[in-house]
Amino acid sequence: MTDKPLTPLLDTINDPSQLKGLSREELRQVADELRAEMIDAVSVTGGHLGAGLGVVELTVALHAVFDTPGDRLIWDVGHQAYPHKILTGRRDRIRTLRQKDGLSGFTRRAESAFDPFGAGHSSTSISAGLGMAVASQLEGKKRNVVAVIGDGAMSAGMAYEAMNNAGAMDARLVVILNDNDMSIAPPTGAMSAYLARLVSGPVYRGVRKTAKQIVEALPQIFHEPARRTEEFARAWWTGGTLFEELGFYYVGPIDGHNLDHLLPVLENVRDAQDGPILVHVVTKKGKGYAPAEDSADKYHGVSKFNVITGAQAKAPSNAPSYTSVFASSLIQEAEQDERIVAVTAAMPSGTGLDKFGELFPSRTFDVGIAEQHAVTFAAGMAAEGLKPFVAIYSTFLQRAYDQVVHDVAIQHLPVRFAIDRAGYVGADGPTHAGNYDNAYLGAIPGIVQMAAADEAELRHMVATAAAYDAGPIAFRYPRGDGLGVDMPARGQVLPIGKGRVVREGGPIALISYGTRFGEVLAAADKLAALGLAPTVVDARFLKPLDEELIARIAREHQVVLTIEEGSIGGFGSHVATFLAQHGLLDGKVKFRPLMIPDTFTEQASQDNMYAAAGLDRAGIVAAALNALGADESLLKTALADKTLP
Amino acid sequence: MTDKPLTPLLDTINDPSQLKGLSREELRQVADELRAEMIDAVSVTGGHLGAGLGVVELTVALHAVFDTPGDRLIWDVGHQAYPHKILTGRRDRIRTLRQKDGLSGFTRRAESAFDPFGAGHSSTSISAGLGMAVASQLEGKKRNVVAVIGDGAMSAGMAYEAMNNAGAMDARLVVILNDNDMSIAPPTGAMSAYLARLVSGPVYRGVRKTAKQIVEALPQIFHEPARRTEEFARAWWTGGTLFEELGFYYVGPIDGHNLDHLLPVLENVRDAQDGPILVHVVTKKGKGYAPAEDSADKYHGVSKFNVITGAQAKAPSNAPSYTSVFASSLIQEAEQDERIVAVTAAMPSGTGLDKFGELFPSRTFDVGIAEQHAVTFAAGMAAEGLKPFVAIYSTFLQRAYDQVVHDVAIQHLPVRFAIDRAGYVGADGPTHAGNYDNAYLGAIPGIVQMAAADEAELRHMVATAAAYDAGPIAFRYPRGDGLGVDMPARGQVLPIGKGRVVREGGPIALISYGTRFGEVLAAADKLAALGLAPTVVDARFLKPLDEELIARIAREHQVVLTIEEGSIGGFGSHVATFLAQHGLLDGKVKFRPLMIPDTFTEQASQDNMYAAAGLDRAGIVAAALNALGADESLLKTALADKTLP
Repeated sequence: MTDKPLTPLLDTINDPSQLKGLSREELRQVADELRAEMIDAVSVTGGHLGAGLGVVELTVALHAVFDTPGDRLIWDVGHQAYPHKILTGRRDRIRTLRQKDGLSGFTRRAESAFDPFGAGHSSTSISAGLGMAVASQLEGKKRNVVAVIGDGAMSAGMAYEAMNNAGAMDARLVVILNDNDMSIAPPTGAMSAYLARLVSGPVYRGVRKTAKQIVEALPQIFHEPARRTEEFARAWWTGGTLFEELGFYYVGPIDGHNLDHLLPVLENVRDAQDGPILVHVVTKKGKGYAPAEDSADKYHGVSKFNVITGAQAKAPSNAPSYTSVFASSLIQEAEQDERIVAVTAAMPSGTGLDKFGELFPSRTFDVGIAEQHAVTFAAGMAAEGLKPFVAIYSTFLQRAYDQVVHDVAIQHLPVRFAIDRAGYVGADGPTHAGNYDNAYLGAIPGIVQMAAADEAELRHMVATAAAYDAGPIAFRYPRGDGLGVDMPARGQVLPIGKGRVVREGGPIALISYGTRFGEVLAAADKLAALGLAPTVVDARFLKPLDEELIARIAREHQVVLTIEEGSIGGFGSHVATFLAQHGLLDGKVKFRPLMIPDTFTEQASQDNMYAAAGLDRAGIVAAALNALGADESLLKTALADKTLP
Repeated sequence: MTDKPLTPLLDTINDPSQLKGLSREELRQVADELRAEMIDAVSVTGGHLGAGLGVVELTVALHAVFDTPGDRLIWDVGHQAYPHKILTGRRDRIRTLRQKDGLSGFTRRAESAFDPFGAGHSSTSISAGLGMAVASQLEGKKRNVVAVIGDGAMSAGMAYEAMNNAGAMDARLVVILNDNDMSIAPPTGAMSAYLARLVSGPVYRGVRKTAKQIVEALPQIFHEPARRTEEFARAWWTGGTLFEELGFYYVGPIDGHNLDHLLPVLENVRDAQDGPILVHVVTKKGKGYAPAEDSADKYHGVSKFNVITGAQAKAPSNAPSYTSVFASSLIQEAEQDERIVAVTAAMPSGTGLDKFGELFPSRTFDVGIAEQHAVTFAAGMAAEGLKPFVAIYSTFLQRAYDQVVHDVAIQHLPVRFAIDRAGYVGADGPTHAGNYDNAYLGAIPGIVQMAAADEAELRHMVATAAAYDAGPIAFRYPRGDGLGVDMPARGQVLPIGKGRVVREGGPIALISYGTRFGEVLAAADKLAALGLAPTVVDARFLKPLDEELIARIAREHQVVLTIEEGSIGGFGSHVATFLAQHGLLDGKVKFRPLMIPDTFTEQASQDNMYAAAGLDRAGIVAAALNALGADESLLKTALADKTLP
């Protein structure tokens, strides 16, 4: 922790409209102070650092030129909006970023009128902006709509869909392409190469040298008739043919850290606009903070850190993360089977595939932010007999739902889905919650669904997926570290659709699906201490359901609970449906499915979320005793007595 | 019905390899006979006509030049593959197209080795093809992979994602852009305009005039060093800069009905290939059949028709289609509320929005095949206070799942989803089944979900959605015609989350969600005739569930059935979960959720599918009596006695 930086000019800014009265020199000072303030804030809270640092000048310029919030300013993804938050009335809460009850780490409509569209996932801003621009048009209002989108986000299909649609309309829409050649990992794909060519072209390099003269000439030129503007475009702009073919007027590339370039160009764009415009701005991720500039990947998302040294605090851990267990297990399998290949959509380090890629570069495919393509690309490989593993976060697999149904499952293609960040994700909040895959995959016929009870089980499931060739198979695991169990040297192939009975007991049975297993065992200990040692089952499979085992459990117990880290429609709902359809609830059993409540859960620690959802040991014990009809005092004893396990 | 056409040369072709021995003149004859055979077949079966007619010459040329099935030929969507099926050993079954147990109306891996990747939805072929090309590369095999994709399909983001990825790799992939300026409706978007410019450019027009000379010169040029090829490219090819910027080598435009152009170009592409190539082929949808050429939209999908006159057979109907009721109801609402706007993803006529668009052109948005963008674009409009209705098929909404979660639901934006073709769709088969929306939307917090029991209810639900501003709201309705009930002049706003009790009875209760309602009433009649007149509930809402009503029904009945046209995880599973969580199954009630079985259902008539799923009156009666424990004889009486209702 360091002393807060001195920010005398920034201290006077309570509303972005105040920027309009400032000189260019003063705006530069605001930008410098904003940068210092942001570094200090993130050093306390952790969060996305590099992205925000890269757009400090752009943020100041946009608010100085446009009339927010009347003009709509949409930050794609939203993780680069910390400077924007500081400038738009949220500075007093900036050190609550990503904390419970604090500011969101992304833009959020509920948080401020200056956030006209919230985000978290990438590549949505042009679609939303076009919708807003069209609405203004229909309502006869003349307002500017500005979407700021990174070059990495431009690899996603929905950005292209929006460009294609906008380019054919005459909507007043400004797209700022924030080109930092770095989304999370270095971007891949032809678009990225294209942008690099634009930026490295002789015209841009020439512009940087003579920028001042040219920019001073800008205003007059813009106000001349169209013919002159055209000439000017040909002379100065490097072309951006791809964007022009898509119907956008292309301006750029512009140095995104130079207010002398940014301000006049944005003013002209604002005043001369007549149809969609793309402004190509070149920035450096992490700009102005040496540790972040030097390692943009590492400083994409940071823990709390020391401002002077850049050293990040890491919580000590006794167990490997699920992500690292997945990666090491997949490497083990791939060493034995050269048909195994791995696909990521721009998340090599988040999914652990960076390590896989170091060992098997020709068998690793980072397709960019392009989840739809990732899945169908994998389906194509599976059709040829390869064994593709698509490593993807639960929340991002939502982007490829149709591809899972249509390209994979209907064709029974053995694509393996390694679903990371399944369940609650903590500080990233509701946009990143991995709560729905149990339900949305569960509806698809013929897909095998597994959830790992602990890190050893994850290793077995990787082996199981590698061995299974009859159709699609998915396994989910959460954000964070394992339970610290003994790791098997190699994964074993599990029997498909079979759960395992971990403890025999009664009259209560706890059927766990996935990584609430540790808490289920703890709850079982607590119940045992009360003389109610329950049966404990690790279901392993949601699909196919182990119907034989579940039927037996239902017949032999008074109370059956299912416990999962997922939404309604998932494991508990499948079990309920199965039991009902087979008349197994008609008897004396009391069945209670525990799951994530049917609401969006605001950012907090994962443990906090589990407790609130009743998915911790106390919640499980309480649900079991309530169902059993245990009297109040027993329940109180169980929950209050710290001498119990 | 007409006599089958004479096809002497086609009759000798049992395998596409035989095409290689034929002269260009003979190939032309094969194409002509293929066209006649296809027209005749579709006149008997109905199906997609125009698309197949447009690619007859291309199909012949591709099979004459490439070595299928060793070379992989992927037809995007697959609805244009009827000529391909005739040429690849399926001619004897071509008059079973889209019938139960017959050939699929799309490509299908299980059907033939010549269909290396199945489809139904659009824009998947480049991703799949790239996966296959990469697999060949990894396995050290040198095979060609050819993906044929329409210009309409190029508006989808996943096609762009695939191009962007392929363009950065050196995979041997040939993309044939089949540009007929017409996907289903005339395409919209900047890409479409771009293609039109390429085709209308002076170079292409010049080429058509002097095509013969140029094409004769082709082979030598291609075999010359790269320098000459480059020169040639500059001279003849119009540029295709957009594709070249995306890393593809662009060839075209080429007249797709002229084998003298197609064959040498495809041969050269096959032999000279070294990285991804895009061949731009211009065709006419419906080519060679005047009624289809003149009205490409109308002949996209056809009923059985008279080959001579082109007149299509239409089944008589006593009730309006759900689609038309949706359209007329939305028009009624829009006349009263100018904030209502409508969005379609390239399906104006399929969704009925063409009629809306005639009346409100400035409030109607066809965004192209771009479901992701459609939903977030609507979210942007909703954020500005408009009332967007996204009219979309259930199966295509799968493409925008993340957008529904992330851009709409998390922000509580009042986007209205009019979900057409919900449930079984008949001849289009499993790729188009609308079975999953109950489950995949049901997992999302805060979305209101409704299903229309009949066409009058649909009108009420349109009114309800128009009035509801607190967040997202969806209503589903099936393919086909209504029940013929009296239509209210105007829709009424329904109370959110409230079902309606249609009949009071006992000890059986039937809770219907959606359009199995007609069969539920019929089943109730049958039960009444046996002295078991049941309670009948139209649930109307899946979310929020009418918990009060459902709890009461569960308390007051011995047997409770839910009936829905949807998969596991949907209405029945939600009811089961609710009842279990609240201990309402612990008593004497026997709860049985009826739903679509958890398998992919092959093409057949919708009625056939309902019967097989037990979702017709007989299935409902049987399930109710079984649950009640009625003796076998009563069940037999109920199902056999035709004098019962």
